[in-house]
Amino acid sequence: MSSQGAIAEIGLIGLGTMGGNLALNIAENGFQIAVYNRTGEKTDQFMAKAGELAGKLVPSKDLKDFVGSIKSPRAVILMVPAGEAVDAQIEALRPLLDAGDLIIDAGNANYHDTNRRAEAAEKQGPRFMGIGVSGGEEGARFGPSVMAGGPTDAWNQVGHILEAISAKHDGEPCAAHLGEAGAGHLVKTVHNGIEYADMQMIAEVYGVMRDGFGMTAGEIGEVLETWNGGILQSYLIEISGKVAKAADPQTGKPMLDIILDRAGQKGTGRWTAIEALMLGTPASTIEAAVAVRNMSSRLDERKAGEAEFGAAPQPMDRNVLGIDALEAALVAGKIVCYAQGFGLILEAAKQYGWAMHLPKIAMIWRNGCIIRSAMLNDMSAALTDDPQRNLMFAPFFSEKLKETEGKLRQVVAQAALHGLPVPALSSALSYFDIMRTARSTANMLQGQRDFFGAHGFERTDKDGGGYHGPWAMG
Amino acid sequence: MSSQGAIAEIGLIGLGTMGGNLALNIAENGFQIAVYNRTGEKTDQFMAKAGELAGKLVPSKDLKDFVGSIKSPRAVILMVPAGEAVDAQIEALRPLLDAGDLIIDAGNANYHDTNRRAEAAEKQGPRFMGIGVSGGEEGARFGPSVMAGGPTDAWNQVGHILEAISAKHDGEPCAAHLGEAGAGHLVKTVHNGIEYADMQMIAEVYGVMRDGFGMTAGEIGEVLETWNGGILQSYLIEISGKVAKAADPQTGKPMLDIILDRAGQKGTGRWTAIEALMLGTPASTIEAAVAVRNMSSRLDERKAGEAEFGAAPQPMDRNVLGIDALEAALVAGKIVCYAQGFGLILEAAKQYGWAMHLPKIAMIWRNGCIIRSAMLNDMSAALTDDPQRNLMFAPFFSEKLKETEGKLRQVVAQAALHGLPVPALSSALSYFDIMRTARSTANMLQGQRDFFGAHGFERTDKDGGGYHGPWAMG
Repeated sequence: MSSQGAIAEIGLIGLGTMGGNLALNIAENGFQIAVYNRTGEKTDQFMAKAGELAGKLVPSKDLKDFVGSIKSPRAVILMVPAGEAVDAQIEALRPLLDAGDLIIDAGNANYHDTNRRAEAAEKQGPRFMGIGVSGGEEGARFGPSVMAGGPTDAWNQVGHILEAISAKHDGEPCAAHLGEAGAGHLVKTVHNGIEYADMQMIAEVYGVMRDGFGMTAGEIGEVLETWNGGILQSYLIEISGKVAKAADPQTGKPMLDIILDRAGQKGTGRWTAIEALMLGTPASTIEAAVAVRNMSSRLDERKAGEAEFGAAPQPMDRNVLGIDALEAALVAGKIVCYAQGFGLILEAAKQYGWAMHLPKIAMIWRNGCIIRSAMLNDMSAALTDDPQRNLMFAPFFSEKLKETEGKLRQVVAQAALHGLPVPALSSALSYFDIMRTARSTANMLQGQRDFFGAHGFERTDKDGGGYHGPWAMG
Repeated sequence: MSSQGAIAEIGLIGLGTMGGNLALNIAENGFQIAVYNRTGEKTDQFMAKAGELAGKLVPSKDLKDFVGSIKSPRAVILMVPAGEAVDAQIEALRPLLDAGDLIIDAGNANYHDTNRRAEAAEKQGPRFMGIGVSGGEEGARFGPSVMAGGPTDAWNQVGHILEAISAKHDGEPCAAHLGEAGAGHLVKTVHNGIEYADMQMIAEVYGVMRDGFGMTAGEIGEVLETWNGGILQSYLIEISGKVAKAADPQTGKPMLDIILDRAGQKGTGRWTAIEALMLGTPASTIEAAVAVRNMSSRLDERKAGEAEFGAAPQPMDRNVLGIDALEAALVAGKIVCYAQGFGLILEAAKQYGWAMHLPKIAMIWRNGCIIRSAMLNDMSAALTDDPQRNLMFAPFFSEKLKETEGKLRQVVAQAALHGLPVPALSSALSYFDIMRTARSTANMLQGQRDFFGAHGFERTDKDGGGYHGPWAMG
């Protein structure tokens, strides 16, 4: 392509809510940006609403014109639905771009797809980068967290733009080049998995307050608001408090009492759980959170269950278990959940040979994204100190766990006795207890496996493996 | 191929332990069977050990000769390593077989591969069937449980052989045609997932007895032996008791105290968990069991954890929690685990449009396979009564759950308080409590999701979806 008349510093394809907001964000940060949408009407609508930013936007209704309006070497951000649409768009762009140009997939791609596209790009060009963008619509418009994976030269080309549009934490951009190929999308996936677990644990303590303590939504909102001033300070605690305190404009009732308890999912939390299984690394709090969404969707079955077994939740004595115990349980659960999440990223980096910078991940999650929280600051410090170590064992978090584990036990125990399901918190406790036990009960599993399948075992008193027990096979 | 000189009623490729035992089983049941192995030496070794069964075996060292020794329409069982070896063997066989012949993959295939091979077979022949074979080496030799998927005419051709070699329960063969394409391998996968959870729950109560009650391996073995005379009667309880009672010939110490607690896995339990996630159906007890294996493998990390946090397990008061509570907890956990497993099969059948016969699955699991148990008899009755219903709600199991859920609560609560990890039992309790609660806490999740992502929610007081809360976006 000739680049005569090219004036834009970057281009963006896909003017849906996320893509449009991202384009406006780029424009607002002073970059001339070319925009294109499959259906031209959307481009018109987008431009009509762009207001004073229109001067920074270069719309095209023809893909060739769009490409021609970008300065060489070109960079084109794709914000189209994950999956086949991305492949189709790459195919459409390839003949129009030079080998030195760059395609950036900013959608919610499965990182295996990004790995595949990165491999294809290396062979046939143009260059390819996959970036995870978190923060929802608002983040896209005013500052998301940007997790980039791809070749270093690609980052060098557009990093300054991505840093400029990203959220800031104490002035530092929440955008970074995290590793090769699918590394950015992997981190985004794990981010979403952690988000599932974070949300689920909040829902669990909400349940204890609602059904165990008999608190109103408003009272629960007050508690969450208070917590947001402490160690749990985070976007998710903040919005949970707002959700709890909101009233339904139609009925005047608490919004939470109006919302049906059938949760949806868009798949990335599920991907995290699948990925953990494939990589052989435990992510049990995330898995529990995904399983709960699947259970919640079976509303008729749950109704049949209540009819069969009677209503489960029983009032609890607030003298046995107080609000402070719930806060402590959330702290402990959150540490475990992040330990599992970072453990997953570490394992993926190992298996793919990616040189990933774990502290940087914690740093760019400190603002812009859904899981942003005060604790991520401490995590980035702990991971800087030793990125290979289980986060639970870092001094700061180890201390916090020692302070809170007793309360987590109380919450799990009392919830179990009173029929209040806390699967994510329970999974966190089990993980903590297994990972702090040198002598677990997996020797029984190994005994069973050797008995029925002659799988062999290792011994406590000798090196090597492949030992068998004195049980005869058939 | 000409079938002159063909005398065998069936053929088998792959004379490893499982394949060899299966061939001997077929021969012993009076069927003439052609055998072939990639390396001829193994065929020689196999024949040398065949003894009086040699007369029923027709060995070949050439694949053409092997095919030629089987009567038309031919049926060839593959017992080669799952994965590429199966595809390679099919490719090698295809030019030698007629379209009306039949290839049977009896390995531990991923059922997605079986679906793919079934589809290819429909287009280009020969016919294809995937069968799951459970029971380990001994089962293969003396009577496995056989779970078949594929075209009905394929089953009609070889069903009598598979029934003859299978285990029997009250004279009924533990072999059945369960559905189309990958249905047999899917059921085998779920079988293995249930196996993981069954084993894990036994290991958990073993841990309570060992670390909570301070019982010796021998004492624990006695308890398991007693349980095997009751409602928990099963192969896994039986062999767990034997493992617990066994002494190490080298040291005289209990075998369990010698076996290192680092558990392996061959992948099928993991597949079940992945499948549950892909199908969007909760299988949390199985997921918990897989996660524990992954945790157990991190021995050095666990040692570091114990050094950091101190040894967790605390002695428990046996007056608070007795042996009977552990038995009851296992009963409840087992019912939940099977409810999840059958739920997964039901969901797969729905999504693939397979007409699967759930009671038949419970029936053929009653003998031959690793998870065989007395309770499967009651499950086959409950599923015959209503295969669509959650197994927990069937009268027999509902009664059992009502009798045992209180004890399960006690076990989960006391274990949590004493640092004894019981993740599978905890997951079972959470599932029970969620599935018997019409009003769960997923309304909080939906509120959060709508707040940050405008995902919309349903209302308790109106039909339809896509409602939003009074929180402004940006």
